[in-house]
Amino acid sequence: MRIREATEKDWVLIWPIFHEIVKAGETYAYRPSTTIEQGKKIWIDAPRKTYVLEENGDIVGTYYLKTNQEGPGSHVCNCGYMVSSQARGRGLATIMCEHSQKMALELGYKAMQFNFVASSNEGAVHLWSKLGFEIVGRLPKAFNHPEKGLVDALVMYKWLEN
Amino acid sequence: MRIREATEKDWVLIWPIFHEIVKAGETYAYRPSTTIEQGKKIWIDAPRKTYVLEENGDIVGTYYLKTNQEGPGSHVCNCGYMVSSQARGRGLATIMCEHSQKMALELGYKAMQFNFVASSNEGAVHLWSKLGFEIVGRLPKAFNHPEKGLVDALVMYKWLEN
Repeated sequence: MRIREATEKDWVLIWPIFHEIVKAGETYAYRPSTTIEQGKKIWIDAPRKTYVLEENGDIVGTYYLKTNQEGPGSHVCNCGYMVSSQARGRGLATIMCEHSQKMALELGYKAMQFNFVASSNEGAVHLWSKLGFEIVGRLPKAFNHPEKGLVDALVMYKWLEN
Repeated sequence: MRIREATEKDWVLIWPIFHEIVKAGETYAYRPSTTIEQGKKIWIDAPRKTYVLEENGDIVGTYYLKTNQEGPGSHVCNCGYMVSSQARGRGLATIMCEHSQKMALELGYKAMQFNFVASSNEGAVHLWSKLGFEIVGRLPKAFNHPEKGLVDALVMYKWLEN
């Protein structure tokens, strides 16, 4: 298993992971109808860095890293992680999140922020908490879940520098 | 005094207001070195709507309105307001904020969120609170103020629908 920077060519292998997650509309603030071209802009072109987690030649996970706010906010980065449905429950999100924190520090960021964690996504909230992220905000009814309706979204934050 | 939608031609009159505020680096999460072309993209092209507040043929204030998060978050909008330094202290931000809440409802939004209010910007925090926005998040040391250094940034939120 290894994590490396994504190339444009990887997008065809990332897309099935991205599409399955985004189409479900349960976790990411992207349009469920996002096309393969729009997805590439979001996941590959717009972020500062995109990484893939490879195992036996397959891509089983991916994450992006970008500056969360420009100018006076540019020391704080933002990441998003996706794991293939076949590869869940094996700690790959943890591996990617720890990797991203190291990369963030190398790139000069001092903190990492998740802007919009659906409160219904209890697995993610639990995992980010375990990895040292604090719930610093709660946005009432800001996430429209396809089954649960309007649920709160959480802002989670971790200071990375010692 | 009237508020109307901005056109591309207005940008040359909006730019001095935008530039003075952004260059100071005390309130907005844009690069202080933002150029006139980049500013136009940020303030005119990217938002869903941009408005100007006109008085005697002059533009004395401006605001944008956009969707804050796509997909499951697309019922929440985000706005940013700027008042010319010559026109401050006369309640123009209040007038624009109230206008923006009406427009947001007309456009189908249910809530409004300010993502990154510098906690050092006490006037703004006080004003938004008075207008019904709640502090729903506090991002520790997320705003790098040119004089005060790292200060907290606030997330403020108002449910607009009755």
